[in-house]
Amino acid sequence: MEVCQVLHMNGGRGEKSYAQNSLVQRKVISMTKPIAEEAITNLYRNTFPASLAIADLGCSSGPNTLFAVSELVKAVDEVRRKLGHQSPEYQVLLNDLPGNDFNAIFKSIAGFQEDMRKQMGDGFGPCFFTGVPGSFYGRLFQRRSLNFVYSSYSLMWLSQVPEGLEDNKGNIYMAGTSPASVLKAYYRQFQTDFSLFLKCRSEELVAGGRMVLTILGRKSEDPASKECCYIWELLAVALNEMVLEGIIEEEKFDSFNIPQYTPSPLEVESEVEKEGSFTIDLLDVSQVNWDAYDEEVHQSEAFKDGGYNVAKCMRAVAEPLLVSHFGEAIIDEVFSRYGEIVANRMSEEKTEFVNVTVSMTRKG
Amino acid sequence: MEVCQVLHMNGGRGEKSYAQNSLVQRKVISMTKPIAEEAITNLYRNTFPASLAIADLGCSSGPNTLFAVSELVKAVDEVRRKLGHQSPEYQVLLNDLPGNDFNAIFKSIAGFQEDMRKQMGDGFGPCFFTGVPGSFYGRLFQRRSLNFVYSSYSLMWLSQVPEGLEDNKGNIYMAGTSPASVLKAYYRQFQTDFSLFLKCRSEELVAGGRMVLTILGRKSEDPASKECCYIWELLAVALNEMVLEGIIEEEKFDSFNIPQYTPSPLEVESEVEKEGSFTIDLLDVSQVNWDAYDEEVHQSEAFKDGGYNVAKCMRAVAEPLLVSHFGEAIIDEVFSRYGEIVANRMSEEKTEFVNVTVSMTRKG
Repeated sequence: MEVCQVLHMNGGRGEKSYAQNSLVQRKVISMTKPIAEEAITNLYRNTFPASLAIADLGCSSGPNTLFAVSELVKAVDEVRRKLGHQSPEYQVLLNDLPGNDFNAIFKSIAGFQEDMRKQMGDGFGPCFFTGVPGSFYGRLFQRRSLNFVYSSYSLMWLSQVPEGLEDNKGNIYMAGTSPASVLKAYYRQFQTDFSLFLKCRSEELVAGGRMVLTILGRKSEDPASKECCYIWELLAVALNEMVLEGIIEEEKFDSFNIPQYTPSPLEVESEVEKEGSFTIDLLDVSQVNWDAYDEEVHQSEAFKDGGYNVAKCMRAVAEPLLVSHFGEAIIDEVFSRYGEIVANRMSEEKTEFVNVTVSMTRKG
Repeated sequence: MEVCQVLHMNGGRGEKSYAQNSLVQRKVISMTKPIAEEAITNLYRNTFPASLAIADLGCSSGPNTLFAVSELVKAVDEVRRKLGHQSPEYQVLLNDLPGNDFNAIFKSIAGFQEDMRKQMGDGFGPCFFTGVPGSFYGRLFQRRSLNFVYSSYSLMWLSQVPEGLEDNKGNIYMAGTSPASVLKAYYRQFQTDFSLFLKCRSEELVAGGRMVLTILGRKSEDPASKECCYIWELLAVALNEMVLEGIIEEEKFDSFNIPQYTPSPLEVESEVEKEGSFTIDLLDVSQVNWDAYDEEVHQSEAFKDGGYNVAKCMRAVAEPLLVSHFGEAIIDEVFSRYGEIVANRMSEEKTEFVNVTVSMTRKG
């Protein structure tokens, strides 16, 4: 069975893309850019491929979709110009779930290609774009057809809500009050999914091919650590309030869990080593404020409400899951409460997302 | 400049796919199936590729989209089972203009893959699907990345309305009353476009790769022959009536021309030979009734009106062109008149489309 179908059945994500278009995500792409650029220019210098196939897994649809890949292509083009080489043919493979809006991406490509040609001059390209619908927890590309795999803020999504979460009452994700069985169930699902992901990509990448993944994660070895779970705990607070007020049924609430896992660097490393096809070149941890706007210069008054921004960003991610479980009717109320709760906490403490970035090379 | 942009400026086709989902087109796919199957199984027997990349150019979006390609894959799989070989990995590349509804195709792929697995058993595949937006009058794929190129009922569409049609007054396509300069302008545009198409595909196909193209065409060497132009002449009759009644401005009518060319087998052959990268294996001419329903067994009363069927089918093709030139308001009226005119002629004479199919091999 297709993973996206599982997602659809379990959490309703089947009809949505891996959301990657918030300002936070844009910021993360920029922050981790040096790692991805180092990896791809290194790959280029070592192999000088006549064609360079770059896959973006969980590309989503929006202003960030072509941004990450274009930065990679620009980095390679700069090196190739300095070395006086002819441009490789670029093949950009944009992947997301079948419910992603590929039509919107495709309509923007011609203008995008035109901009790239202008920026990089006559010697550049060609650069071909294709859309590849499907779950990355399965094979997507031909054997040995990729040179570079990139994924940002997508791999924390599991292929399904783990089984065995019956005792996670009062929570919607791993939390301080989750029993050990729940934490184990989450971790097992992450191990299954991530090792399958690595196996599939190992078949698709050429020997010496590179892969750079940024995953929403944590620094601590405690899977219920506040740094990764707090943002969901606050959503649980909002939902709990509504249970107490009789707006949401308690049973409904108790059976709702988020299909996500925010791994530690060590957990990522351990799966890569177990799978065995890749060498880790770099493992990095970075942090970004929940409210990316508070570091932005060009902000308007409307965007200064941090709680509102974070709730909006989380709504884009969580709404499909909530709608599929609870229905449409409660959604505005949930996020209005959530926004207030988040704003309140943000005013009292520093709140950050932790990103784990791993850069690796396909053995060969 | 992208061809699709030219189309958009000149004829409004930029936002549409190469229409390929009428019953006529389904019938043509079935009729020419033996030629395409012969070519692809031949390719398979001669090379036994570990992976087989098949591009469908002008795939459109609808019930026919995956039909043609699936028949090709089935044909190969039958041969490979008979020979007791392991299945190649199939890579299906679906191309059409960026305005095509790729989202609809992508949502149907999982079910389609499931059906294929059921039909062909465990040893089959994997079969990967990707969408490739862009005009086929330009490069679309990596150098030497395709084994097989297929296109049905798309290549009669030119990249733009030819220049130099000012003297084609009273007509909307080549017609018996078109001056020689108009016929020449149309032919020149076909030559430019088709030779560019061949050049691009010659770069993308591997040596020994095969290509099967079916083009709406004609048997006669007269480009204004009734067999290819009559269907448009009848649309011109409807438009002319509306000019006489003051519903359409004469100037508007005079400046409207269809960006299509229906070549003869000799014209196709001549371009292939001039371009020089391909050997022609087979050149075939076939015919199909304007009203494909009249040969169908499972017909309902509603579909027995041939004129209505043909007008409906032509409307799918011509509406975007007409809307972009004349606006929305006149469309229903145009096709209501056209349906009557077509029905009238069909009752008096046998009306058929002519298809030119060419099967060729990339030299190497």
